[in-house]
Amino acid sequence: MSVYQATTSAPVNIACIKYWGKRDTKLILPTNSSLSVTLDQDHLRSTTTSRADTSFDKDRLWLNGIEEEIKDGGRLATCIKEMKKLRREVEDKNSNEPKLSTFAVHICSRNNFPTAAGLASSASGFAALVSSLAALYALPASPSQLSLIARQGSGSACRSLFGGFVAWEQGSLPDGSDSLAIEVAPQSHWPDIHALICVVSDDKKGTSSTSGMQRTVETSPLLQHRIKNVVPVRMEAIKKAILARDFDSFARITMQDSNQFHAVALDTDPPIFYMNDVSRAIIALVTEYNRVSVENGGMLKAAYTYDAGPNAVIYTPKENIKDIVSIIVKYFPQAEAFKDPFGLFGAQGVGEGGVVQGFNAAVAKPFSVGAVKGLIHTRVGDGPRVLAESETLLGANGLPKVVA
Amino acid sequence: MSVYQATTSAPVNIACIKYWGKRDTKLILPTNSSLSVTLDQDHLRSTTTSRADTSFDKDRLWLNGIEEEIKDGGRLATCIKEMKKLRREVEDKNSNEPKLSTFAVHICSRNNFPTAAGLASSASGFAALVSSLAALYALPASPSQLSLIARQGSGSACRSLFGGFVAWEQGSLPDGSDSLAIEVAPQSHWPDIHALICVVSDDKKGTSSTSGMQRTVETSPLLQHRIKNVVPVRMEAIKKAILARDFDSFARITMQDSNQFHAVALDTDPPIFYMNDVSRAIIALVTEYNRVSVENGGMLKAAYTYDAGPNAVIYTPKENIKDIVSIIVKYFPQAEAFKDPFGLFGAQGVGEGGVVQGFNAAVAKPFSVGAVKGLIHTRVGDGPRVLAESETLLGANGLPKVVA
Repeated sequence: MSVYQATTSAPVNIACIKYWGKRDTKLILPTNSSLSVTLDQDHLRSTTTSRADTSFDKDRLWLNGIEEEIKDGGRLATCIKEMKKLRREVEDKNSNEPKLSTFAVHICSRNNFPTAAGLASSASGFAALVSSLAALYALPASPSQLSLIARQGSGSACRSLFGGFVAWEQGSLPDGSDSLAIEVAPQSHWPDIHALICVVSDDKKGTSSTSGMQRTVETSPLLQHRIKNVVPVRMEAIKKAILARDFDSFARITMQDSNQFHAVALDTDPPIFYMNDVSRAIIALVTEYNRVSVENGGMLKAAYTYDAGPNAVIYTPKENIKDIVSIIVKYFPQAEAFKDPFGLFGAQGVGEGGVVQGFNAAVAKPFSVGAVKGLIHTRVGDGPRVLAESETLLGANGLPKVVA
Repeated sequence: MSVYQATTSAPVNIACIKYWGKRDTKLILPTNSSLSVTLDQDHLRSTTTSRADTSFDKDRLWLNGIEEEIKDGGRLATCIKEMKKLRREVEDKNSNEPKLSTFAVHICSRNNFPTAAGLASSASGFAALVSSLAALYALPASPSQLSLIARQGSGSACRSLFGGFVAWEQGSLPDGSDSLAIEVAPQSHWPDIHALICVVSDDKKGTSSTSGMQRTVETSPLLQHRIKNVVPVRMEAIKKAILARDFDSFARITMQDSNQFHAVALDTDPPIFYMNDVSRAIIALVTEYNRVSVENGGMLKAAYTYDAGPNAVIYTPKENIKDIVSIIVKYFPQAEAFKDPFGLFGAQGVGEGGVVQGFNAAVAKPFSVGAVKGLIHTRVGDGPRVLAESETLLGANGLPKVVA
């Protein structure tokens, strides 16, 4: 008897134009379009195995080894139901297809990055879930079609169905059928874009993005202006910058939009803060690094962006990443040696870091070890991957394999 | 021979609706109206003596004992010139008046609060300058007329010409003749409004408000929406709240407008931050204090507001000030005992502070001694005062008296 299963991995994405606010909380329809860079799965990924079997009693899901409840009407249940519906269409068209849509599924998912890193795993997680079910069900669906379902799991997950540079077009239809992800440009168009993730320590439990964004929708007088007048212009401008590989414009828009997202969070009642003094210091360092370049007749060389937490993601062309790592390490000494996946620093490592010539060292004060808990160097990457059979996360008994 | 001199004191004011942005940088005409509470001169004041004498060679000014250059065309020179012009009108009408407008003046000014406190002294300073010259020149000008001149020294100085609750109406005329302060309500209307100033330590030199606000005007897409659509509504609403002594509305608008000012600062390119982690923690504490009240069926009991720096000013009716001081002292232990000008705590003092019942202590972490460097308890106060002859800051030789 056949084993019906598939294993896929899906990437993390980090937005340049931020998603903040839903016009429909059930369907997860956003108040504005957004745009992100997909990060390399070689470094950060969710991996998911989905298996359909007549012996399974009910749909079950394990995340990082722990079973999660699939609540009726909840986001997980919605995604699984929608995927089964697409499978049924396949079966209805071809009666030879096994009736997988009638089988229960076991789903096992793992992230290769710690939850404590404060990286949103819901985007890669729901993208991996949807793409593993799509592979299991051999669906003829495009990534954009799958993005409609991933979106209902976690809004930003829809953008992890593509590699490269991805737009989530807000759409206008009440049923959400035009609120989907499209590829602006593939990874291969601009593979030079690297990213340094600065994992920032925080004392304070922040407001969840789900509740925070709706409080902004309800109370910020500035949000509507952002939605109607600012984001549409920025979406067009950043797409143009990406197509032209114009890093200067890409960086300017990315930083402006990160700041404006945090501005509308602050304009919320009561206000929402995600950035802390460490985040502010990283902004000051990137701003100074860019100032030196611009004053010498050059262009912007790096762009920070912050999601709903204090972690910084710094985008920069590959040629500048060494500068950026050196600056960050100088101000934020690391407990562990910088993991140097691209071999930037050779055997001697980054050492104590340093700044570029003309850099005003007084723009920030050096912090203690631990203020930035870790650094992850990665780059733009590809979309979900279907992995080999041998990569399955489920054992023969249909339960998660025990990880050593 | 007569000595022509006058000594006045003028108060600090702290805005509830924030001034941020000029439409005319020379005349200091704002992009929006603003509204402030005048604080009690018994606690915080600038004191200024102006003397006119035929023996003086030129106009001179000393601030806190140090002579300041009066630059041609600068703000000080403009204010002195405008005041002399008003004096000339008096002399032209009555030929018996001594021709003081033709004499040079010596001006000596002192603040009774340290510059290190980070309290803007330009408002009280220019208000004291203008009111001392008005007294010296025996001008028939109203405080609103004088506010037109103080405004050209420092925008927010115009609001220190009145006590109580003061609006700076932005006006629309190109010459600025309708951009002036008016009294919304005197101190006596609502004397119950107290204020706790939390002087916050900061590592970082912030962006000056003069340059910061113009960068916001030039680069923030959200500012224009604030100016056109948000502030006009808030100005009317907060005036109504003041007239009705409706603290709940007053507090809500004050906090929202502080947050929106910092939001547009953050929406500036590069972004401007004035609040730090200590400021954020104080916001969390006031928010929690209000939450407890509201959840028990009460109203907002305190309102924070932040100017272009990390210091918090907390407005609260007198009955709650003890709660507020106790909460702040609990999270921000003080190196020196709380100066208790209103005798709230009696002989035993505030001790280690504490929170009210139902307060979730986890909303902020306790900070170390020095994070809040000092606390100043004050309240709504009156407008500029003309002081006795004996209070003069100038010696018989026309130079600043030496202060012991």
